Amino acid sequence: MSVASTIFQALDPATGEALPPEYASASPEEIDLACARAAEAFEVLRATPAAARAALLRGIAQGLEAQAPGVIERAHRESALPLARLQGEMGRTCGQLRLFAAVLDEGSWVDARIDRADPGRQPLPKPDVRSMRRPLGPVVVFGASNFPLAFSVAGGDTAAALAAGNPVIAKAHPAHPGTCERVGQVLVDAVRQAGLPAGTFALLFDAGYEVGRALVQHPRVAAVAFTGSRTGGEALMRLAAGRPHPIPVYAEMGSVNPVLILPGALRARGAAIAQGLHASFTLGVGQFCTNPGVVLVEEGPDGDAFLAALAQLTAATAAGPMLTPGICQSYEKGQERLAALGAERLAQGLEGAAGRAAVWQVPAAQALAHPQLLEEVFGPSTVAVRYRRAELEALLRHLDGHLTATVHAEPDELPEIAPLLSLLETKAGRLLINQFPTGVEVCPAMVHGGPFPATSDGCSTSVGTRSLERFTRLVAYQGFPQEALPPELRDENALGIWRLVDGAWTDGSA
Amino acid sequence: MSVASTIFQALDPATGEALPPEYASASPEEIDLACARAAEAFEVLRATPAAARAALLRGIAQGLEAQAPGVIERAHRESALPLARLQGEMGRTCGQLRLFAAVLDEGSWVDARIDRADPGRQPLPKPDVRSMRRPLGPVVVFGASNFPLAFSVAGGDTAAALAAGNPVIAKAHPAHPGTCERVGQVLVDAVRQAGLPAGTFALLFDAGYEVGRALVQHPRVAAVAFTGSRTGGEALMRLAAGRPHPIPVYAEMGSVNPVLILPGALRARGAAIAQGLHASFTLGVGQFCTNPGVVLVEEGPDGDAFLAALAQLTAATAAGPMLTPGICQSYEKGQERLAALGAERLAQGLEGAAGRAAVWQVPAAQALAHPQLLEEVFGPSTVAVRYRRAELEALLRHLDGHLTATVHAEPDELPEIAPLLSLLETKAGRLLINQFPTGVEVCPAMVHGGPFPATSDGCSTSVGTRSLERFTRLVAYQGFPQEALPPELRDENALGIWRLVDGAWTDGSA
Repeated sequence: MSVASTIFQALDPATGEALPPEYASASPEEIDLACARAAEAFEVLRATPAAARAALLRGIAQGLEAQAPGVIERAHRESALPLARLQGEMGRTCGQLRLFAAVLDEGSWVDARIDRADPGRQPLPKPDVRSMRRPLGPVVVFGASNFPLAFSVAGGDTAAALAAGNPVIAKAHPAHPGTCERVGQVLVDAVRQAGLPAGTFALLFDAGYEVGRALVQHPRVAAVAFTGSRTGGEALMRLAAGRPHPIPVYAEMGSVNPVLILPGALRARGAAIAQGLHASFTLGVGQFCTNPGVVLVEEGPDGDAFLAALAQLTAATAAGPMLTPGICQSYEKGQERLAALGAERLAQGLEGAAGRAAVWQVPAAQALAHPQLLEEVFGPSTVAVRYRRAELEALLRHLDGHLTATVHAEPDELPEIAPLLSLLETKAGRLLINQFPTGVEVCPAMVHGGPFPATSDGCSTSVGTRSLERFTRLVAYQGFPQEALPPELRDENALGIWRLVDGAWTDGSA
Repeated sequence: MSVASTIFQALDPATGEALPPEYASASPEEIDLACARAAEAFEVLRATPAAARAALLRGIAQGLEAQAPGVIERAHRESALPLARLQGEMGRTCGQLRLFAAVLDEGSWVDARIDRADPGRQPLPKPDVRSMRRPLGPVVVFGASNFPLAFSVAGGDTAAALAAGNPVIAKAHPAHPGTCERVGQVLVDAVRQAGLPAGTFALLFDAGYEVGRALVQHPRVAAVAFTGSRTGGEALMRLAAGRPHPIPVYAEMGSVNPVLILPGALRARGAAIAQGLHASFTLGVGQFCTNPGVVLVEEGPDGDAFLAALAQLTAATAAGPMLTPGICQSYEKGQERLAALGAERLAQGLEGAAGRAAVWQVPAAQALAHPQLLEEVFGPSTVAVRYRRAELEALLRHLDGHLTATVHAEPDELPEIAPLLSLLETKAGRLLINQFPTGVEVCPAMVHGGPFPATSDGCSTSVGTRSLERFTRLVAYQGFPQEALPPELRDENALGIWRLVDGAWTDGSA
């Protein structure tokens, strides 16, 4: 690789101009050093009480709030996302850090279990076995372009990995390096203030893919978290599976988020659904992984009226700058692909620099024959698939894995479609009824996951408090004297956490 | 593949004679049919209440008990394992099925979470989000040769996958097809009696690797469970990762299970430890994945005396028939490898047909220089690594991932080695103090897992009630009316399970 290609700058997507300063890709030595320091830090971190990690997370949130104006301004320049949106994203980012700190304070998330000994059991004595979740090791985090705060350097994956007790090496996103740098500095300061080893957090820049590739293959790295494209995610999955010691990759690769509108709902409130759907698929110039990119609408006059309303709203939609020139080009190509595959464009948004909204229509038979029509087009576009009732089941079976699947139905329509809901359940990590998929609540019950290709690991979630679990492994302690056990597993239960003791849940002592 | 190679018979390892009848590898059509029927069954199973699955598990246990004499007799012929051991294994297998049924009855294992709506929240209303574990889909189970009952057709993986609501396609182990056939018939009958679809369970035979390979690559298969060699496990991992839609492989590939004996323990009770260790590493002709294959003993007279005692016990150990001719050959090759790498054989057991016990010794420096000395030799052999205190940390760091790691220490030695215990924790799924690793308790707290290469997924367990979780995915339901929710997530909590409601654990209603 030539030296020139290792130097890069951010581009202002609104103007196309390069934003100083220049950033340099991490050298192989810097990568090695970051990994070695993370491995060293892990030895300290895994013996650090949860309270110290909670203090770190709160320190990061406080640091981000103190730096918010500068961070948001830079993120705005680098991403063209509106200031108000970025202010909301900053709130979500800090709220997430504090929610995870509260999970650590409460403490039960470690799934502590105690099975006490029974020396008199026949034919063999029963041993004392206790177990809980323990951290994995250094985690490499690849942030997303579309969430420069909530899914980047101090975003969900970093917060979850740190909360669970793992060091983090963040790879700066090349589209918002200045934001990454500012946020990374907040993390470095917070780590120091928390009295934790410096290797607890590192930020590395990468002009291309070399640094990311080296990190995923580095022997000291224990897991990878990624939010981005399917191409990128699949490349990381292959690298990780090809290691001498394979490691888990938690890749969130986006999805089409199908929306099924039943005839009764269409009749009763088609206009309202059109408004909600339009707001959802054009939100943030359509740059959400939960963007509803396919909507199943029955053939007939109610569906025609619904799509006419949707088309009208779309035609009046202002174009907006997209996150990067690459995303913009992909969006244009995606639009051309829909046209080439014979989709009918019902409406196009107002002209502008980029990111022009669009609604398309295809008959179900065509969607079934050309699966590409149902593939993600990242941006403010949605494809209405017109179905006859008899085609619906085949259409749903035809769907690939998604982050979400939504049904709009009147109450009396639900019993009849119970089998279809059950089918949809196998296709998505989150099912919604009469709501819209964009806007992912950060809460204990959230599942932001879904079968491949939506994610690499459809069994877990990258949003919500369960996201900590992905960065842990189970460890059992057999025959340990009390003082050699982690506090979570000692009889006394000084932390007051919920534990499964001899098969029964209790927050008392064992 | 020629037709001839698809017909096979079991061999009696004690006599070498072929045992009738002949078995035939499943044809591609039979594989397709089993997978299609499993996928159909899954549509019913995932809507089946947990109580029906609990009844199925109990029906299998009852059926096995009714058939026990014939099953055990055949397993004895096919594996050369003693009848008493197989009776114990049958007890464990049935106990495991009933334990999982009890977990279903109790119901909290689904990790149900409810975050209720707050329509008045600012700046945005909070949606109602609920989530729980749901089954994955058809699971292919590859049993182990060394547990023809507890880790084969009706073993832990099958019980866990069925309990979690997944259909199972078991691949019969070629070393004990007659045992598989008898147990498989019990499962088929239990499925029918439980009123569940026939596709809930299927058994396929395989003379070689073709059927297994086809199953792992079959588009309708959702997950794979395997217990066996590292070569086999890694081959399945590669196949699964190379699918257009990758699926999880839970492979338990065995391990060396290092045992560290500290000087104080050696001095205080070296003879007792030698006795316990000898019993552990020669148990069942050493054919356990938790067999202690490496023991770290300090240099000096106490260590010498300990090894003299171990050598004496080993020299008096009778040889026993091993599970298969292949395992026997591998064991001999492993012994030759240790000799070729310069290990000193301290003692060898009594001569016999096969499976002759052995204790070897190497200096720590040699073990560090030749990692092959620390690789698994499946059989009744253990390698004593003689260390000086200053070498101990390097030796522990050098260890690969294992199912277990054991420390023998006097109480006053534990504080000093706390950092080494913490290091060992990163190398194993289960840590033991002053016990022996063979004999895996089936209980809620058990972890039978461990970092690669012990398993493909060091975050989970294949023994104990947590093993159900591997065959589930998280699904969230947003904005669902009560009647459209699974019973586990309805406000009323008719099942009385523990749930996380608005962030607090409760077994009451929401």
